[in-house]
Amino acid sequence: MTKKEGKEKPQKNIVGLTVKKENFSEWFQQLIIKSELADYTAVSGCMVFRQKSYAMWEKIKDYVDKKLRKIGIKNVYFPLLIPEKFLIKEKEHVKGFAPEVAWVTHTGDSKLNERLAIRPTSEAIMYPSYKKWIRSYRDLPLKLNQWNNVVRWEFKNPVLFLRTREFLWNEGHTAFASEKEAIKEKNQILKIYQETLKELMALPGFTGRKTQKEKFAGAKNSWSIEHILPNGKAIQGPDFHDDGQNFAKAYNIKFLNKNEKEKYVWQNTWAITTRMLGIMYAIHSDDKGLIIPPKLAENKVIIIPIFSKKDKEKILREAKKIKKGLNSFNPILDEREDYSPGWKFNEWELKGIPLRIEIGPKDLKNKSVKAVKRNDNKKLNIKISQLKKKIPKLLEQMHEELYKKAENLMKSKMKKAETLEEAIKIIKAKEIALAPICNKSLCEDYIKEKTGGAKVLNIPENLEKKARHKNKLCIWCKKPASYYVYIGKSY
Amino acid sequence: MTKKEGKEKPQKNIVGLTVKKENFSEWFQQLIIKSELADYTAVSGCMVFRQKSYAMWEKIKDYVDKKLRKIGIKNVYFPLLIPEKFLIKEKEHVKGFAPEVAWVTHTGDSKLNERLAIRPTSEAIMYPSYKKWIRSYRDLPLKLNQWNNVVRWEFKNPVLFLRTREFLWNEGHTAFASEKEAIKEKNQILKIYQETLKELMALPGFTGRKTQKEKFAGAKNSWSIEHILPNGKAIQGPDFHDDGQNFAKAYNIKFLNKNEKEKYVWQNTWAITTRMLGIMYAIHSDDKGLIIPPKLAENKVIIIPIFSKKDKEKILREAKKIKKGLNSFNPILDEREDYSPGWKFNEWELKGIPLRIEIGPKDLKNKSVKAVKRNDNKKLNIKISQLKKKIPKLLEQMHEELYKKAENLMKSKMKKAETLEEAIKIIKAKEIALAPICNKSLCEDYIKEKTGGAKVLNIPENLEKKARHKNKLCIWCKKPASYYVYIGKSY
Repeated sequence: MTKKEGKEKPQKNIVGLTVKKENFSEWFQQLIIKSELADYTAVSGCMVFRQKSYAMWEKIKDYVDKKLRKIGIKNVYFPLLIPEKFLIKEKEHVKGFAPEVAWVTHTGDSKLNERLAIRPTSEAIMYPSYKKWIRSYRDLPLKLNQWNNVVRWEFKNPVLFLRTREFLWNEGHTAFASEKEAIKEKNQILKIYQETLKELMALPGFTGRKTQKEKFAGAKNSWSIEHILPNGKAIQGPDFHDDGQNFAKAYNIKFLNKNEKEKYVWQNTWAITTRMLGIMYAIHSDDKGLIIPPKLAENKVIIIPIFSKKDKEKILREAKKIKKGLNSFNPILDEREDYSPGWKFNEWELKGIPLRIEIGPKDLKNKSVKAVKRNDNKKLNIKISQLKKKIPKLLEQMHEELYKKAENLMKSKMKKAETLEEAIKIIKAKEIALAPICNKSLCEDYIKEKTGGAKVLNIPENLEKKARHKNKLCIWCKKPASYYVYIGKSY
Repeated sequence: MTKKEGKEKPQKNIVGLTVKKENFSEWFQQLIIKSELADYTAVSGCMVFRQKSYAMWEKIKDYVDKKLRKIGIKNVYFPLLIPEKFLIKEKEHVKGFAPEVAWVTHTGDSKLNERLAIRPTSEAIMYPSYKKWIRSYRDLPLKLNQWNNVVRWEFKNPVLFLRTREFLWNEGHTAFASEKEAIKEKNQILKIYQETLKELMALPGFTGRKTQKEKFAGAKNSWSIEHILPNGKAIQGPDFHDDGQNFAKAYNIKFLNKNEKEKYVWQNTWAITTRMLGIMYAIHSDDKGLIIPPKLAENKVIIIPIFSKKDKEKILREAKKIKKGLNSFNPILDEREDYSPGWKFNEWELKGIPLRIEIGPKDLKNKSVKAVKRNDNKKLNIKISQLKKKIPKLLEQMHEELYKKAENLMKSKMKKAETLEEAIKIIKAKEIALAPICNKSLCEDYIKEKTGGAKVLNIPENLEKKARHKNKLCIWCKKPASYYVYIGKSY
């Protein structure tokens, strides 16, 4: 389905990316469109997940879902549409989402009596049911999850995957009889997300609590896993929200405890979204095109036979045999004759096939092939008889290398600052500052102003108390700091 | 999560169904709510798929999806929202759907320049992309599918699962270079749906082509699998639409063929929806509650120990051992002591657990248990040592029995009519008439009027030409008939 394969012999320069990764915005857009991951549609800000990216989302979904099932989470499906009067029950929640809500006002030719919100998130439609279903402590914990689509009509510039007005996600909504039980879920869920990022997507991130200023609308406390894009901007990945009893009180979700006393439940919500795909593509890919962790590649191997007229038959025969033997890696054999090997290399590099296998006359004579790793272009000679055994190791190695490279890059961009001046300098250099601050939102406001828009990303858990113990001072007000935080410009 | 398990000892009559299946509407509603498959929400016509029914949908989805992948269908995700100008491109299509469309007119506080339809189906948002992606015969066939949610704001009385304003489905959208190739897909897809109904849901159905009057809005020809509900009404299951070049012309989807001529593509669409869950619950269940095919039951076995104070310990110990041994059937052991065995029987029958295992003092002595099949209440004594071997066979047998029973019931309700009078009589008796008609829509209109609202369900394929060969006459106009058709009142 390469659109560029017209009827004439195509030009090399039409296929590849025409800008480098350092020019992030345009590079990213070209990457996504040209490698056929996604496409724009007639609806501004809403994209098509083409088969390639959607297959990756399905893999991520399956992976997360299996882990969620193991800890007793059950999937359900609640309506897409939320009556306005339900959405406005939790004051902070509606304040956070109202500006972004898409409203249904008419059906057919009729005006609705009450307008309906397309869910930006489902608290407001789920919790009236929770109120109905939860009667006694025997009904708890109630641990439900949805995999669905949500709409948030943001007015910032939409960007494929990273900032879209509709996206896909999981939204977990759990209710417990005690605060202690509820908060225990935090590490369980964050671990599931962290493992998914690391093991499947080869993505590092930094986890921490959000400040009160930056937490989820309606939550008591939020935690996030954050990432750094190639342009130095931070971007939020999966999150977890301890809602305390905020929603329980707004939606009146009570239960009879063992002593027959009425109590409000304690709730959590948590999510991972299709934005993660964009973060992954952005972090791993390069000037030549897409790089993805082999586990997420549908076709893990591309076989390119290199032949002239006289040895064509022999080489193709061997290439087909190799293809058959490598069945479990779902290889593609590129037999096209009106394209040069070089042109094919470029095309499959653009499309992100993890491993390229070249077989020419010399290789055939040596009973070997050349294998080229997409992530670092390293070339290896491998005996054909060894291929099946070596490829899994190579793919595993690529995964590790991708993770390590991303982790090193991330760490290299995170720098300690003890003063506002140091923080400003770091942020100006498109990096992330780790700095002590106090817990006043006002200080965060000033820091944002002084740094030209950087915000607090999160509070790394292991450093939460360290600032206090070490008598550090808030980089703005110079009063005793409450914690170290990551500060950076955010996507 | 049984809501009725209050703090006092519950009353038997609160849990069970209070009406019989012959009173279909009320019985069905009670069945769905009390067995905790689904619930109403604040949005009229939109329901919650609770964990139990959603898990079944996930199984159906996985089953269908695997078969679709095998024939080369790829999953994608297109936007939920469709700009009005795209929806109105195919005239018949928009006429069919416009009265049911939910319109987004505002986002946040702003009015949109152009209103957006929530997809009632996705032709109008997918085909502009098809136009863009399809250039040459090399890009064909394009065989894409979505698993998503759609909204059709019908004004008829909503019914849980069977008639909801939002439902979940798959929508396949395929494009081919030739009509011949396109039409070949019909049998592939219908077979996948038929196998799913039979093998997974134990559901029979009757397949056939729709008349021109009853086909899908925008299609050239439609095929459907139809079912008969306990109240004698027919209800449409999965369908397949041969769109010919109708949408290709409306959305200008052309390709260059091998001779470099521009041609319109040939398209199909096809779907299976969550309505099937409701049809399955309605057909298999009984006065006592839910009956589902064992393959779709999360917990296939309920173990109920029957004990007095003195043998409690011994019996519970054995019951736990049995539970452990039957792990692969995900059994529940109901150890509750403040409920009588009879009360427990009723509860788990209501909830549709396929197999009940009772173990009391006598059973223990005989090293056996009593096994009771949910579908026919048959009691068997099984040696404990034989359980693991016998249960899979019992479950398989239950599946066969469910299918056979449903098939016999369906067949018993389908009767041949050679005249209008005979057809009217059959339809009055809440059955389905198989009658010869000509191909004029007007005749269908008259028949509908005369039968008090019955419509043509479909044209059974094996009988399509038989009416003509046998010189049968249309039951309305008495001119030569074109085919036999099934006529019945439809849900």
